[in-house]
Amino acid sequence: MQPKRILAFDPGFERLGVAVVERQGGRDVLIYSDCVRTKKHLPFPTRLQQIGEAATELIKRFEPRSVALENVYFEKNAKTAMKVAQVRGVLCFLAAKAGLEVLEYTPLEVKVAVTGYGKSDKRAVSEMVGRLVRIPPGKRLDDELDAIAIGLTGLAIGALR
Amino acid sequence: MQPKRILAFDPGFERLGVAVVERQGGRDVLIYSDCVRTKKHLPFPTRLQQIGEAATELIKRFEPRSVALENVYFEKNAKTAMKVAQVRGVLCFLAAKAGLEVLEYTPLEVKVAVTGYGKSDKRAVSEMVGRLVRIPPGKRLDDELDAIAIGLTGLAIGALR
Repeated sequence: MQPKRILAFDPGFERLGVAVVERQGGRDVLIYSDCVRTKKHLPFPTRLQQIGEAATELIKRFEPRSVALENVYFEKNAKTAMKVAQVRGVLCFLAAKAGLEVLEYTPLEVKVAVTGYGKSDKRAVSEMVGRLVRIPPGKRLDDELDAIAIGLTGLAIGALR
Repeated sequence: MQPKRILAFDPGFERLGVAVVERQGGRDVLIYSDCVRTKKHLPFPTRLQQIGEAATELIKRFEPRSVALENVYFEKNAKTAMKVAQVRGVLCFLAAKAGLEVLEYTPLEVKVAVTGYGKSDKRAVSEMVGRLVRIPPGKRLDDELDAIAIGLTGLAIGALR
């Protein structure tokens, strides 16, 4: 059977965290991760276009079996929340259009899956991510680490099924 | 010059209102309107896929110059608002990808453009829409009339520029 490869996103319009993870012989492996940025001065539809084109490219390049996303319904700032939701819409649409399974996890599910504890802070999640998979050296933005955490959640929950 | 043709959407995931309007010799003309529905039992990404495919088809068929959408940031139900925002994201993405201008109007702008009064109720807007353009006989859903109103707003505001 083909290994279960997941393309994970931490949705955002300024920074989109991206990770490709896979379970190989019982071990979780990070294939790729990145942070896609769009420029502030661009009209929002253009930023959505760039994000969608990046996602299309990633689906084509890595041929994942599923796309994993964080499912956030509430944010401090309603305007930001609605913009992030629009990004999520584009990512879900492209995944469904490519025939991929869409996996959605709440921030709580991600924390529990990665650290075993639902009240972990951001740093604890990042640290655990670095222990679970080998991340090539270099500084990573939170968005990228979050995307890896979401991907690992997909592998962990998928392994239980 | 090519007439300014607008493809307008009243974004929704159960019912997506659609209208194509155009100014012909100083008169607003309704070229097409419809209400695209998606089934409740389908997974949300599949519904987004169907909506996106319908929008892609409409852009291809009617070759509009712009896409007009209502820009709603708040809804009574946050979960519904986030889902509608995801639909908006897909529509904006597809418009930008097709190289179309994206026009966004608030509900207030639509009311003022169509009725000349910002506190008009739904019925007043619907009635005025029926006076501004010839709508083929038959019952119309609110979503379809709303899409026509959004399209007419685009024509009215566009004419002022």
